Amino acid sequence: MSTRPFSISILGVSGFAGTELARLVAAHPAFDLVGVAADRWHGKLLGENMRIAGPAARLRVSPMDDAQKLAAQSNFVALATPAEVSMKLMPDLLAAGARVVDLSGAFRLTNLAEYPRWYHFDHTAPELVAEAVYGLPEVPDAAGNAQAIEKARLVANPGCYATAAIVALAPLLRANVVDRETIFMDGKSGVSGAGRKVEERYTFMEVDENVSPYRVGDHQHTPEIDQALARVAKADVRVTFVPHLLPVKRGLIVTAFARVCRSVTTAEVEALFRDAYDSEQSLVEVTSPNQVTISRVAYTPLGSVGVRLLPERSAVVVVSALDNLLKGAASQAMQNLCAMASVSPGFSRGCP
Amino acid sequence: MSTRPFSISILGVSGFAGTELARLVAAHPAFDLVGVAADRWHGKLLGENMRIAGPAARLRVSPMDDAQKLAAQSNFVALATPAEVSMKLMPDLLAAGARVVDLSGAFRLTNLAEYPRWYHFDHTAPELVAEAVYGLPEVPDAAGNAQAIEKARLVANPGCYATAAIVALAPLLRANVVDRETIFMDGKSGVSGAGRKVEERYTFMEVDENVSPYRVGDHQHTPEIDQALARVAKADVRVTFVPHLLPVKRGLIVTAFARVCRSVTTAEVEALFRDAYDSEQSLVEVTSPNQVTISRVAYTPLGSVGVRLLPERSAVVVVSALDNLLKGAASQAMQNLCAMASVSPGFSRGCP
Amino acid sequence: MSTRPFSISILGVSGFAGTELARLVAAHPAFDLVGVAADRWHGKLLGENMRIAGPAARLRVSPMDDAQKLAAQSNFVALATPAEVSMKLMPDLLAAGARVVDLSGAFRLTNLAEYPRWYHFDHTAPELVAEAVYGLPEVPDAAGNAQAIEKARLVANPGCYATAAIVALAPLLRANVVDRETIFMDGKSGVSGAGRKVEERYTFMEVDENVSPYRVGDHQHTPEIDQALARVAKADVRVTFVPHLLPVKRGLIVTAFARVCRSVTTAEVEALFRDAYDSEQSLVEVTSPNQVTISRVAYTPLGSVGVRLLPERSAVVVVSALDNLLKGAASQAMQNLCAMASVSPGFSRGCP
Amino acid sequence: MSTRPFSISILGVSGFAGTELARLVAAHPAFDLVGVAADRWHGKLLGENMRIAGPAARLRVSPMDDAQKLAAQSNFVALATPAEVSMKLMPDLLAAGARVVDLSGAFRLTNLAEYPRWYHFDHTAPELVAEAVYGLPEVPDAAGNAQAIEKARLVANPGCYATAAIVALAPLLRANVVDRETIFMDGKSGVSGAGRKVEERYTFMEVDENVSPYRVGDHQHTPEIDQALARVAKADVRVTFVPHLLPVKRGLIVTAFARVCRSVTTAEVEALFRDAYDSEQSLVEVTSPNQVTISRVAYTPLGSVGVRLLPERSAVVVVSALDNLLKGAASQAMQNLCAMASVSPGFSRGCP
Repeated sequence: MSTRPFSISILGVSGFAGTELARLVAAHPAFDLVGVAADRWHGKLLGENMRIAGPAARLRVSPMDDAQKLAAQSNFVALATPAEVSMKLMPDLLAAGARVVDLSGAFRLTNLAEYPRWYHFDHTAPELVAEAVYGLPEVPDAAGNAQAIEKARLVANPGCYATAAIVALAPLLRANVVDRETIFMDGKSGVSGAGRKVEERYTFMEVDENVSPYRVGDHQHTPEIDQALARVAKADVRVTFVPHLLPVKRGLIVTAFARVCRSVTTAEVEALFRDAYDSEQSLVEVTSPNQVTISRVAYTPLGSVGVRLLPERSAVVVVSALDNLLKGAASQAMQNLCAMASVSPGFSRGCP
Repeated sequence: MSTRPFSISILGVSGFAGTELARLVAAHPAFDLVGVAADRWHGKLLGENMRIAGPAARLRVSPMDDAQKLAAQSNFVALATPAEVSMKLMPDLLAAGARVVDLSGAFRLTNLAEYPRWYHFDHTAPELVAEAVYGLPEVPDAAGNAQAIEKARLVANPGCYATAAIVALAPLLRANVVDRETIFMDGKSGVSGAGRKVEERYTFMEVDENVSPYRVGDHQHTPEIDQALARVAKADVRVTFVPHLLPVKRGLIVTAFARVCRSVTTAEVEALFRDAYDSEQSLVEVTSPNQVTISRVAYTPLGSVGVRLLPERSAVVVVSALDNLLKGAASQAMQNLCAMASVSPGFSRGCP
Repeated sequence: MSTRPFSISILGVSGFAGTELARLVAAHPAFDLVGVAADRWHGKLLGENMRIAGPAARLRVSPMDDAQKLAAQSNFVALATPAEVSMKLMPDLLAAGARVVDLSGAFRLTNLAEYPRWYHFDHTAPELVAEAVYGLPEVPDAAGNAQAIEKARLVANPGCYATAAIVALAPLLRANVVDRETIFMDGKSGVSGAGRKVEERYTFMEVDENVSPYRVGDHQHTPEIDQALARVAKADVRVTFVPHLLPVKRGLIVTAFARVCRSVTTAEVEALFRDAYDSEQSLVEVTSPNQVTISRVAYTPLGSVGVRLLPERSAVVVVSALDNLLKGAASQAMQNLCAMASVSPGFSRGCP
Repeated sequence: MSTRPFSISILGVSGFAGTELARLVAAHPAFDLVGVAADRWHGKLLGENMRIAGPAARLRVSPMDDAQKLAAQSNFVALATPAEVSMKLMPDLLAAGARVVDLSGAFRLTNLAEYPRWYHFDHTAPELVAEAVYGLPEVPDAAGNAQAIEKARLVANPGCYATAAIVALAPLLRANVVDRETIFMDGKSGVSGAGRKVEERYTFMEVDENVSPYRVGDHQHTPEIDQALARVAKADVRVTFVPHLLPVKRGLIVTAFARVCRSVTTAEVEALFRDAYDSEQSLVEVTSPNQVTISRVAYTPLGSVGVRLLPERSAVVVVSALDNLLKGAASQAMQNLCAMASVSPGFSRGCP
């Protein structure tokens, strides 16, 4: 009989983010992993499909059809499912009494008109979109809801690129330092960002020794970044975002460019970042932009960010990196779950 | 006795660009490779140090001290040496009667004041800086000298990032479509771009599964790009450039962002690129930006470029890729040498 | 109107080996590429699907159903198709009057009983199996047919691993130096060896940062190696072969271990290899085993081999490397085609 | 004031194995990391140089000259230093009262004559060589000393290749199933196996897309494997070992080949492995040889091993993989330290 205080189920456990989250949850003394679901692994023991320590290894994987049943047995549910699946499941999960963290994009965008354009579906749960809290703990003014993460029933866990991008620009926009209409972002992600897809473009022969831009100007994290930064800036923001696929398994890096719109010094700009992120709870560290690399953060729950002002070019550059499966997905979900449960996340800046 | 019409020597043959150039020259029926120099390989046969076909394999590698002697025996000299070495050798090579293509940055910047800042030396041959022609054949209005490449005594072969960047933006600036002060560029290069350096940051353990920004805002190709684009735009241009090191051996990709400054359509923008590059002689191909990848151009003499207008964001994105050792160095030098010799370069769009 | 003397068609041109062979053929002055077939690219121009220079780029790709028609128009046909396809097409191609080089395993094994076991089909053209010449030019005593490659109507081009393995052991077995029953081989291949397959095990996420053994003791090149070495040794040979998949695109390396069965010196062993491979026509080079690496031979038509005798352990180790798509497929096919046409292959040890 | 029962210091903490061990020790509730030494990081806080959680981050790194002082303050010392350094330090560390686990080869070989040949030094502490226990917990009959690991004052932690090799062959030799004179091993290791070396052969340009054999027949783990297997077999054993460098950061895989010397079935052979490794304490798992891959064990403390009998070839193949920095170094050292301290190692088969 477990004495861990909070029961939790993970739906979509067989994906890359789902397995990472299962490991984090199983290692956390406050959570009792009581259910996992994934059609791909249905009927097998969790420990037959992934390395996981302790009693979680002996959990039997449920089919996704058991989603509501698992929710009824759990204080918390984490959804590591595609956006459309999350949208459809959410009403039943909440009705079953669970509090939910959703790792997909299904509840991130407040403007319902954005869903058909970027996600190719009409939203069927608009009232839950209105209720959802955007859960980027280090950028609380992006939450977009008077209700804090701590009290939320539904937390929309941010996208991986979006997390890196918002972390990079929030300090500048909060202080009204850069032109809100001239923000450009180059994103570069490891292949795990695409999930466990078997398509020719994700084969080793296509990815190795290559870098490919994709969805140039069309990536679905664009409106998510616009929305979060607009909340921070208290005015409309428009970013242009181009992602690229890297010959790397884990981690992503975003290099953001903006035009300075008022007189500012390097010292002032750097102070904006330290003020934003140098706190005990923050899992974002501030360093020199030349030090912000993928290997610095891969396999850790940390984001890393660095800024450089180029006064003679009226430009500012911010480099921001994180592990797309951790701070860009599972460990950020863990931060949100722990905030909802009022417990410590159990990892720190020193802890990969 | 060779009946190939033009004698040529390559100084600095042991570097990555030098070896590529040696192969191209040896395979070209118009050139007779009569001398190669490199202290690293001094005294050995060229064929003992690199794979090269035919009589070039039996050339004995000279020490760099023989530079002027080799120049005196050659119609052409190609310099694949560090910038400071090129600067010092150039007067003697020209005095010996050779026409020279320099692959370094020593003669690319017209404004002498830029050398101490970006290259860390004062230029000792200012009159040759004035004479040099900037040799980017597909962007003839960047040459900066009434004298064409065809008649030049000294051609400054463009930098690898600079070639990709100038190819990406020249059509837009020529047509006055984008704001000249709001141009941002994200560069990503394979490790061969750093040359044959043995430093911890170029070890496999540091580079693999990693992407690192470097010289954020300080890269020496920045003034070269500014200068070339200013010639094309006939007005000052300021780019902000951030390069990144990739876990890839060969190839680079630049993603450029600019702000549209006048009303323009997608069709007009795409036509600017086709008009610029769709010619028989051009080794730059125009395609969709999602198709511009490193593997498309690696090991080929081609550049590849694609543009996307985002009207609702008043932004334009251009992606540009090339092989840093070929179109970014050796094959571009070959284009220049062939133009100087009035012969065909011997490779084409179909020929990797 | 082409004046190139020999017309040739390539069936299965869309695979990795097919595209490499198309480039080699198009660049060779003796061959006129008159037909290419591949259902995957059917109806497109060849130059739309791959980089290829000259008139070959404008060839229209035929469907595979046109195989016999193409054969009727060609002096030579190269088959870069799966074994079962090659087996079925062969009678018609020969009936149409073409001479054929087959890159598959369909005609490599003389013993018909081996096909069901290793290739999972019963052979339907046994008389052509008997006629086929095994085409490994540097190991002529493996050909297994009085008729030389030069006069063959049907040449079975060796497997990639088999080429490396046979090159490694033929000199020792020819001289009766090693125990024929105690030969072990560890093979390691880049991913292109698996062809253009879209399966989870060939995704970047599975291959990168990994090495995987596969078909341990069951690889279909095993009987091919046994057979070729038995011809060389003039007695039965049994090898144990374990292949591994590498996080590399091109190239393979085989490390072979054998037990010395008679008194022999290092000088004698090394002489066996030089005598076997140090000739003008040979595309196998002999070097120190520590120098035999994948990058030494990748993108070249060369094999590289090195031997080390360990007298105190009564053991001999041979390391053998080649590019699986060139010396392991396309350039070896080119050697065979050129031998059949009595022309030079057009590449040499110096020519990558 | 720490209440963790055992004080420990790590000498050579700045190497790859040292940093891994520091993380394992800091996470283990039984150990109090009281000292760390490394000239490279001397004077800095440990947390400035590596990610490590908790109070260990605030340890000041000592110079190596303080080795004996640290030993005097510690119940245990772990030496992650080069073999010659370990040999010289050992007498003083033991004299200071610490019990020591040495990760180098300095105390692994019982026969003193082997040191000049394989390690290029004469041993200066022969009495400690005699005392040392070879610490491969899953192969207790290789320990070579009546004194068990539990009571040892000095444990020689096995080499990475040696661990994989001994795990692969001990079950077969213990049961007298294979010919002791005809054992061949092909090893393949990630680059971290070479340590933090800055040499051209370890640069990305040399390692990427390449595989290189090295020290063919000369690797210093050869006598270590011979010795351990001889203890297990109770008779002389001679292996021939060829290691290869992989384009991979972490992990190694050994494929071992042997000749069966008595009648045996597949079921019997597989049972030998299960009997050897299927126990609660064992960190070696037995699986099918096709499933033994580097990515299965990388970043885990596990070894993985699989066997295949090929009766018609009288051969047996064993594939064995581990993380060279964990089961091949730091986590094995942790197993030994925990055995010496009579505590659980704190990781399990499920725990990466």
